[in-house]
Amino acid sequence: NSRLPGYATHQLGVAGAVLDNSTGKVLVVQDKNKTTNAWKFPGGLSDPGEDIGDTAVREVFEETGIKSEFKSILSIRQQHRHPGAFGKSDMYIICRLEPSSFNISFCQQECLRCEWMDLDELAKTKDATPITSSVAKLLLYGYREGFDKIDITMKEFSAVYTGLVYKLYHRELPESYKDMGGL
Amino acid sequence: NSRLPGYATHQLGVAGAVLDNSTGKVLVVQDKNKTTNAWKFPGGLSDPGEDIGDTAVREVFEETGIKSEFKSILSIRQQHRHPGAFGKSDMYIICRLEPSSFNISFCQQECLRCEWMDLDELAKTKDATPITSSVAKLLLYGYREGFDKIDITMKEFSAVYTGLVYKLYHRELPESYKDMGGL
Repeated sequence: NSRLPGYATHQLGVAGAVLDNSTGKVLVVQDKNKTTNAWKFPGGLSDPGEDIGDTAVREVFEETGIKSEFKSILSIRQQHRHPGAFGKSDMYIICRLEPSSFNISFCQQECLRCEWMDLDELAKTKDATPITSSVAKLLLYGYREGFDKIDITMKEFSAVYTGLVYKLYHRELPESYKDMGGL
Repeated sequence: NSRLPGYATHQLGVAGAVLDNSTGKVLVVQDKNKTTNAWKFPGGLSDPGEDIGDTAVREVFEETGIKSEFKSILSIRQQHRHPGAFGKSDMYIICRLEPSSFNISFCQQECLRCEWMDLDELAKTKDATPITSSVAKLLLYGYREGFDKIDITMKEFSAVYTGLVYKLYHRELPESYKDMGGL
């Protein structure tokens, strides 16, 4: 518990899977400075103090010029890079976003390509990172059968004693359980 | 993307909600050094390089003496403490665990009380932290209607080029979507 002093062990990266529900197309990029040209979702590192959804929206806009809104968390990856090197680990979260603009104007420094791709094409192609493939399949499942099947939704809390706010992400709870007391 | 050097901005805390499926009781503790005696799930900070599920199992054992197995992630909280103080933020993950031992032998330095409590009692009591109440309701929903409703399950990957392994957590995908190609 809190007997040990806290210290930061993880960097946080966040990507946005921006799906246009009216066309079934999803926003993908290829990084400029990589050897393999695999499709992936735009994203990047969280700024200090920045919330997950805000990072996703900001990074998508900076890389692609597309404006969007946070809907849910889709997946979380934990990876320990360079074991022993300062103990730094990586947490990488992919969010589901809905676009509010559609004209791509991508960052030439970061991206080689950027396009709206059919989601089922992304789910099938071999030209995608393994995580992108996994999340594309998950997103396709949600697109076809309801996003409630895949969404990890957000609720905001206020901590009474400290005045701090925090955000909690989990599966949506039926109303009958929300009303149970406690909160 | 990777134009900026990475740095660790988050500490990671992990708690374990250990539910005995045969009795419907869940393992809860009260911290010794807190002013309010609210029930919560045992947990603590991740060691450098330690996977989420391993932290949950280790912390539960150290605090309560109960052995358990990781099943899924239930919820994720992000909180930015002390804004500006080195930019440190807190990620706190609650996991679903299944017990493989049942005799409590709790850590007297950390815990004031520790017991197996009826899950519906925990979901209703006011003597629990808000996050514990939320997750207790979620767990009750899963216990009654199927854990597939609430689980964020884990899949392990190997990164071909680097030899590193990583773990990806998301909603379970139907077999028909897993077989789509790509991976």
